[in-house]
This record gives sequence, structure tokens and C-alpha cells, in this order.
Amino acid sequence: MRRVDLVLTGLGNVGRAFVKLAWEKRGPCRDRYGIDLRLKAALNSKGGFLASRASDAAGLADLPAAVPAPTQHSAWHPGLRLGEALGEGEPGVLVECTPTDIRTGEPGRAFMTEALGKGWHVAAASKGALVLDFPALSALAISNGVRLKYSGATAAALPTLDVGEVSLAAASVSRIEGILTGVTNHILSRMEGGIPFAAALKEAQDIGIAEPDPSLDIDGWDTACKILLISNAVAGTGFRLADVRREGIRNVTPGDLKQARAEGKAVKLLGRFIQEGGERQIEVAVSSVDRSHPLYGISGTNKAITYFTDTMGTITVAGGKSDPRGTAAALLKDIVNIFRGV
Amino acid sequence: MRRVDLVLTGLGNVGRAFVKLAWEKRGPCRDRYGIDLRLKAALNSKGGFLASRASDAAGLADLPAAVPAPTQHSAWHPGLRLGEALGEGEPGVLVECTPTDIRTGEPGRAFMTEALGKGWHVAAASKGALVLDFPALSALAISNGVRLKYSGATAAALPTLDVGEVSLAAASVSRIEGILTGVTNHILSRMEGGIPFAAALKEAQDIGIAEPDPSLDIDGWDTACKILLISNAVAGTGFRLADVRREGIRNVTPGDLKQARAEGKAVKLLGRFIQEGGERQIEVAVSSVDRSHPLYGISGTNKAITYFTDTMGTITVAGGKSDPRGTAAALLKDIVNIFRGV
Repeated sequence: MRRVDLVLTGLGNVGRAFVKLAWEKRGPCRDRYGIDLRLKAALNSKGGFLASRASDAAGLADLPAAVPAPTQHSAWHPGLRLGEALGEGEPGVLVECTPTDIRTGEPGRAFMTEALGKGWHVAAASKGALVLDFPALSALAISNGVRLKYSGATAAALPTLDVGEVSLAAASVSRIEGILTGVTNHILSRMEGGIPFAAALKEAQDIGIAEPDPSLDIDGWDTACKILLISNAVAGTGFRLADVRREGIRNVTPGDLKQARAEGKAVKLLGRFIQEGGERQIEVAVSSVDRSHPLYGISGTNKAITYFTDTMGTITVAGGKSDPRGTAAALLKDIVNIFRGV
Repeated sequence: MRRVDLVLTGLGNVGRAFVKLAWEKRGPCRDRYGIDLRLKAALNSKGGFLASRASDAAGLADLPAAVPAPTQHSAWHPGLRLGEALGEGEPGVLVECTPTDIRTGEPGRAFMTEALGKGWHVAAASKGALVLDFPALSALAISNGVRLKYSGATAAALPTLDVGEVSLAAASVSRIEGILTGVTNHILSRMEGGIPFAAALKEAQDIGIAEPDPSLDIDGWDTACKILLISNAVAGTGFRLADVRREGIRNVTPGDLKQARAEGKAVKLLGRFIQEGGERQIEVAVSSVDRSHPLYGISGTNKAITYFTDTMGTITVAGGKSDPRGTAAALLKDIVNIFRGV
């Protein structure tokens, strides 16, 4: 049995879902993979919980409930810094769940840099630092002999990176197309029913699918980040965010969707990597796809990705939960696979 | 750069496609994975080619063309046995491509047993021995510290096992459903156009999709083998072939398909693993699926598999070439992943 210490940064929806899931899956992880998961600490911008201070024998299992009033909890340590949380013992895995900031990459970049530098593996759900600074973070991981995994940042429970890196080994990928943001696909699906964009967006916000500030999703930034990370990992490209030709769905009208439907097509916001001749490019584009396209039938909050290969034909992966629990499951998968050598 | 010796058993369509592909991908495997693939020998029931005897500096690159008249080739060695082909050097990978025999498991079982016992990894496309004797083969691999991989036997270029074992790590799978045989799905698709079973089968044989003896496919044995191997690997079951409730497509009529279509459904031959309460079972069944089912739109020679999980929702993988080159690509993927530790 291998003991694996976890330190969590970010106590939002994903971070709290991760704590719950890791607790729930402790038994199966021991039984199936010989890994004994221990949550050592969990931090947000105000401080953190330290398992060593918890009065409960279960450690931080009650942490999700404690987050709204952290100062009431025996393990809460105001102003706790990551360095102290990582401590001096055997390195484990930093689980990075802070909010994505695609302008600065912070606070994820600082957290990941510190943890990798101290020999901790990283499983990340936040995208900012990965999109802005992947080469430096990856080099740091390699030089410290640890892993940097980010399924949680690349469509979460939809296995985009695993399939691209493991299942397509030795194949050459000439094109990748994905519906990578559940919110935009949901809004487009609702608009097909005749609801205008603004009303469909408000509805998505009311039911908690879209953020109060929805621009990361509906202006295509979220899709851009994901196709960038996937393309760089699977097709070996070295794209930066400025290389992505990007459009969002703000200007799509119910009339556009109606016309596409009349032509037997469906309108999707696609992230795309295209290699033609020696040219390689990535883009986020509102696209009409016909019935024969593998992504035609992907509706609602569903996501999917299609890889076009030289030797294996066309492979599409669809589904995967889009909620915080799905993202938590992707983080946990990455942690398990780090210790299985995958 | 790590040199990896390969010995191939079986010189049929898949074996020859593998030789071509491995030669074509030597450069990419060196550049991307640091693996230098060398075909050391290739055997069929009459003898084998030994690279050490090839007059050509390229070794056995011309082997696919040489197979029809092997005795004309400088490297042909009548009556060559596997033991001599494996030789005494650093063990590599046995690439097992002999025909599937689900009654005896031979000759694959003997070949795999000998190779694993001598410390060779195995990448298998033939199903017989895996279906009949997996626990013994797996134990032999473990006791010799080597890997037994079989993507080529579990829907080939469609990544069934990778997704189940890697992407769903730490998730619990309560149900698996798959369209796992391209031939039967093709025949059912043609029958939807009103063609009776016998005519659709003959057509599939004429264009080389179906075998002269088609019973392995159309009576559901092929699907049974695949769902058995996938379920045992991903859901941790210990099913044997006799445990599979199985039906084929011989008795399906165009009328059945027409009626399903009138009800908004499609008829598919599904391999299924189902866990309900404490009960677990596997079956191969002709099933009507409605539009909301992830496998509804999978037609022609396409294959697909859906995993129903506790934490990641429902994940479907579709596509993947069904031809010998697709199977060869699955074998090559497994070989690469063995040396990447996946």
C-alpha cells in the first residue's frame, strides 16, 4: 500500500467536489490500485485547513461542509501558505483547483511552480497557467522527475488527452474537432427551439450552468484553451493563445439555426486543429455540420471530440459529466494514473 | 534509443498489415518514443522468415510481398519453430496474429505461453486463448514481469480497453454496451434498406467484409469474446465464454428492422455487461435502441462502446478502422505503450 498525500488549492465547487469524491473513493483506491489517499491540506486565498490539526480522526472529510465558515473548524489556519502545507515529508500530489485566469495564470502558476519545484506531482483543473506557460511548467516537472497531468482542464470527465496520447500512440493526427464547452452547446441547443441568444444565456445562468460573467465560455475562450492544450499535447504543436482564431456564439441567431436545420445541418461551436500540407492551425469557430459528421448529434450540455488519424480512422469520444463531480473524477483519475505510471 | 525486437506469429491479413505498418512507423517510433522496432522473425504454420538470414539490409521489410511464395525468399526457413525465432537475446514483444479458434485457443495459446515464459511481452490480436485461458496467461505474464496487451483482440482501433482501464480509473462501471463487430452492424444496416439477411450476408462476403465461414461473426461469438474480455478487464468480472447469453442475427428480418424504424428505433447486435444490485451478467443480444441511446446512430461497419459510470457519467467511443491496418495500428499502439509503461 502506497500512501499518497494530497494538497488541494482552491475551495470552490470543484475543490469541494474533489474532497468529497476522494473520501468516497478511498476504499476503492486502496483495493484496486494499492493507493492510500490522504488529504494533507486544503487552501484558499484566506488560509487553509491542515489535517494535522483536525480533531477528527477522519481528518478533513468534513471539509466541504466547513468551507462556508472555516474559522469554526479545528483545522483552519488563517493565512496558511502553500509551502507550509506541502511540508517536509514525502512529496505527493498538488490538486490545483483555483479559478482560471487566462490573463495572468495566477494563482495557479505560482502554486504549481512551487509544488513541482519541491518534487510534488500536479493534477490541475485550472487552465490559466497551463495555457500561458505550459513549456516552463512541463520542463520543471521533467527536471524534478514528477508528472504534470491536466485532464481536469481539458474537458474533465470526457477523456480527450488520454485517448489522444494513449489510444492513438504511433498514429498521426491530421485533424481534431471538438465540442468542448457544455454551456455553449446547451445554449445553441436551446436556441434551436427558437429562443434568442440573450434569453437562452439568462436561462443557463438561472439554472447554474453558465457563470454570472459568461464571457470565458460564450466568447470561445474556454474552447480555445482546451483545443490549444489538446493540440499541443496530441499533435505536438506549440501553439499559444494568440495563435487561436476565435469566435464565440454571441452573434448567432435562431434564424441561423433554423436555416441550418432546413439544410439538414446543425450549428456547433467547434474547437479545431487542422493540418493541411505543412500548415497547422487552430481555431474556435461557429460551424454548420451535416448529418454525416461525428459531432452532429451531440446536443445539450454534452461534449465530444473527434480525432482524424492516418492508421486508425476517425475516433470520436462523447459524453462525460460536465459538473464539478465530473471534474473531480478527472482529477482523481489523473492521480491514480500517476502512480500506475500512465 | 531502446531497441525492441519483434517476433510475429501469423502471416494472414493482419500479420502482413502489421509488418507493413511497423516498417512505415519505424521513424516516428524512434523520434516520438525512443523505440527502435526490429522485426526479428515472422512465422506461420509452415515455417518462418528470420531477419538474420535476410540478404537485404532492410531485413524483412519486403516480407508481405514474399508471403505468397516464401521459399523464394532468402530469409525463409522451413519448419522454423517459435523457440528458435525468439532466440537467446534480450526479450522483446511477441505479436500474436494467428487465426482465432475459440474451441482450442491454439495455436495462439502455445505461442503466448512459450513467449511469456521466456520473458517476452505479448501484443495479441487473436482471441481464442485469451477468451479460454486469460487467468493463466495473465498470471504467467505477471510472474515473468512482462505485459500481456490485447487491444487488437478487443475491437482493434476502437480504444475499448484503454478507455475502460485508463480513462475510467477510480470510476465504477455499472454497465457496458457495445457494437463490437463491424460485419454484423454492416449487415443490419443493409437490411434496413429491405435486403434479406442471406442476400446482405452474401454481399458482405463478396466485398470481403465477411468471412467465407461467417458464423464467428453473425452468430455473435465475436461480440461475445470481446465483451467478455472487456468486462473482465474493466469491471473486474471473471466471466467465461459459457456464461455469455448469446444470440446472433440469422433470424432478424427486414420486417423487424422496418417495424423498429416505425417506432423510431434502430436494431443493433449489442454486447452487454450489466450490473444490477449484486447481480452481474454479460450477453450478446439483438436489441432495439431508441434515438436517445448513444449507439443509435452507429451504422455500417462502424463500431462503438458505451461505459456507464458512477462519477463520470456516460462515455461513448465510436469509430476506429475495422480493416487489417486498423488492427495492426492497435497492435503497434500496445507495443509503444508497453515501453512507455502504460
